[in-house]
Amino acid sequence: MGESINVALLGLGVVGSGVARVLLAKGEAYARRLGRPLRLHKALVRDPRRPRAVDVDPSLLTTEASHILEDPQVHIVVEAMGGEEPAHTYIREALARGRYVVTANKEVMAKHGPSLMSLAHQQGVDILFEASVGGGIPIINPLRRDLAANQIRALRAIINGTTNYILTRMAREGLAFQDALAQAQELGYAEPDPTNDIAGHDAAFKLSILASLAFNTHIPPEAVYREGITALTPRDFRYAHELGYAIKLLAIARHHGDDGLEARVHPVLIPQEAPLAKVEGVLNAIEVEGDLVGRVTFQGPGAGALPTASAILADVLDAAQALIHGRPPSPWHPPSPIPLRPMEQLARRYYIRMEVADRPGVLAQIAHCFGKHQVSIASVIQKETNEEAQTAEIVIMTHTAQEAAVRATIADVEHLPVVEQVGTFLRVED
Amino acid sequence: MGESINVALLGLGVVGSGVARVLLAKGEAYARRLGRPLRLHKALVRDPRRPRAVDVDPSLLTTEASHILEDPQVHIVVEAMGGEEPAHTYIREALARGRYVVTANKEVMAKHGPSLMSLAHQQGVDILFEASVGGGIPIINPLRRDLAANQIRALRAIINGTTNYILTRMAREGLAFQDALAQAQELGYAEPDPTNDIAGHDAAFKLSILASLAFNTHIPPEAVYREGITALTPRDFRYAHELGYAIKLLAIARHHGDDGLEARVHPVLIPQEAPLAKVEGVLNAIEVEGDLVGRVTFQGPGAGALPTASAILADVLDAAQALIHGRPPSPWHPPSPIPLRPMEQLARRYYIRMEVADRPGVLAQIAHCFGKHQVSIASVIQKETNEEAQTAEIVIMTHTAQEAAVRATIADVEHLPVVEQVGTFLRVED
Repeated sequence: MGESINVALLGLGVVGSGVARVLLAKGEAYARRLGRPLRLHKALVRDPRRPRAVDVDPSLLTTEASHILEDPQVHIVVEAMGGEEPAHTYIREALARGRYVVTANKEVMAKHGPSLMSLAHQQGVDILFEASVGGGIPIINPLRRDLAANQIRALRAIINGTTNYILTRMAREGLAFQDALAQAQELGYAEPDPTNDIAGHDAAFKLSILASLAFNTHIPPEAVYREGITALTPRDFRYAHELGYAIKLLAIARHHGDDGLEARVHPVLIPQEAPLAKVEGVLNAIEVEGDLVGRVTFQGPGAGALPTASAILADVLDAAQALIHGRPPSPWHPPSPIPLRPMEQLARRYYIRMEVADRPGVLAQIAHCFGKHQVSIASVIQKETNEEAQTAEIVIMTHTAQEAAVRATIADVEHLPVVEQVGTFLRVED
Repeated sequence: MGESINVALLGLGVVGSGVARVLLAKGEAYARRLGRPLRLHKALVRDPRRPRAVDVDPSLLTTEASHILEDPQVHIVVEAMGGEEPAHTYIREALARGRYVVTANKEVMAKHGPSLMSLAHQQGVDILFEASVGGGIPIINPLRRDLAANQIRALRAIINGTTNYILTRMAREGLAFQDALAQAQELGYAEPDPTNDIAGHDAAFKLSILASLAFNTHIPPEAVYREGITALTPRDFRYAHELGYAIKLLAIARHHGDDGLEARVHPVLIPQEAPLAKVEGVLNAIEVEGDLVGRVTFQGPGAGALPTASAILADVLDAAQALIHGRPPSPWHPPSPIPLRPMEQLARRYYIRMEVADRPGVLAQIAHCFGKHQVSIASVIQKETNEEAQTAEIVIMTHTAQEAAVRATIADVEHLPVVEQVGTFLRVED
């Protein structure tokens, strides 16, 4: 059957163990397909004595990255450690030594993707990262290959399962954010420190990767506008529902031609009948809009050991085939800079919820602020009043307005003595 | 920029014109990406003087296939004629002469896919057919590459836009089948002779292609069990809705390990909250279930000149890259025969609507037939009665039962003098 293709794993946590388990279980089936054995050759771990979900031969474990990176018998390095460092350095080292690299690391790919792809290109190898976005959902390769004839116009995605699970529970059961988060943590859907998910960092990393590919540019993750979901209340979900909308954390990128790119992650109101509104629980979905194809949507489990292993091992099989058949790596085009549009230029309809004093003339004062900034009000609903505190809740939906004008309006409204606070401010995505 | 990659088109109808239009409009952008010009070199047409939606240089038109097939300057042949012959013969000829072939032809690929792929493999080229299923939705390549680490367990798909449009109108507006069909024809969504779509042939071709790839076998289209949508009535949609279901024409293939494969196209009841139940109008959606990834769904426009051109040109760009970079064609594995399970072995819940005489004792006689064949009744609803004709309508939902037993039951029920007719008989897909 010829010499084996040797795979080394950096990291044997949830994702790494999943990959090892599948490699051990399916190695023979994969070998039949490749015509060459595909073997787990080494695995980097922190503590070789720790019990694991997978029965890896202890002689394959090492605590020294150099034992893998400097081993000439390793053909494919699978990075499954997560986090920026030392993963980034190890990946760079592996590529520099002419190894194929497969990674699930969204932070590394978001921050260093273009320079790593350039390095891979110089070395005549490839860095494959299908698993870095959307778990097992094929999206990176379809963007690179299957939609390559299109000019991509926009991406809209639910790419963080934790927050989508929390929002689904809040919408369905009227839970408060903290209670929905606690339940997500109990079920293992949210980390003990959930900041990375609930503040939108994870989604921003993934949007950075997708948008950089779709528009052949580099959008560093810190350039993505970002708001989390912590300020949402059960009342927002009730009002949104009444108005015919769902609330979702969307990652959105859109190409405005010469006017540049927008790239943002924040909760939005989206019509209940929109396909993305119906994506529930931990599922992910990515909608791609191309000039030829129109809108196509990719949906599935966005996380989990086996779905992620599905994506990683597809890349491993692809790299193995490239090695076996002497196939040149996929062509690489240096990214072109495209200016990012400031959020202030965004034009959307807006939902604004505020607590106000419950007395005559209040609405007139608020409406005056909106008028002053040319923000046109589409509807006003005065919601439940709190008789004790003598306050009422007002929800205003605007017509399409510029974000700069809406923010200036809110700043003015917040200064009105009759306004207790502006609670939530959400953009509408149609 | 080097010598051009020359593309020849067989057929300049809706799909062919779309491809030509995009090639002319985007040729330069594609050339920049490839590093070599990509040119429309020749196009086979029936009548060169016919006016067309695209402005192709008349000197490129030919009425002789041999002018294209025997031209050594042609690198990539795009077949956009449709129908089995002469398309199949031309594709075979092009491959035999070492040309890359890109096709949107579901009939040819369903019937001859494995032998054409084998021929391409022998010739060191490739036949690419992303456009043959699901229009612009990436599904063929994701199955072949991105889900390659999985053992595929099942496919469930809405892959005929015409019938999905008709069913959507029937469900939403209570239209009769003939009226919904007439509207689809008016809008150009259905052909003047709609048999191919409404009888399920088109969906069976596409299922044959998908299932053959997913299970690495060859399922000839005539081996796919097939029922069309012509027998459905507005009442079925009303009852289905009351019971919490939508009615969809699904193409389903499932691997039962040593028990063989099922492959079937027919209308089903599917729970309203299932993702496939929410796919409306001319949209297509393909759900793939793999042992690692779980369920992933691909959704988008399943037809139309530009979405189909999106898929064809992605394949053309891929073939061009293979030619330019000397990349070997994708590996090919001869299909293994897998036995097909007869429909009689299917185990499902069933919906049966029948017209019966409106008098006491009728239900007892019907229930007796069900009991005799061990088909357990889950619920019976007696629906509107026709007082003049003294008939009533009964809808029976069964528990899970074997298709053979249900069919035997229905044959018995049809022989009861109190039963006017068994109207509709639908399988439930959960």
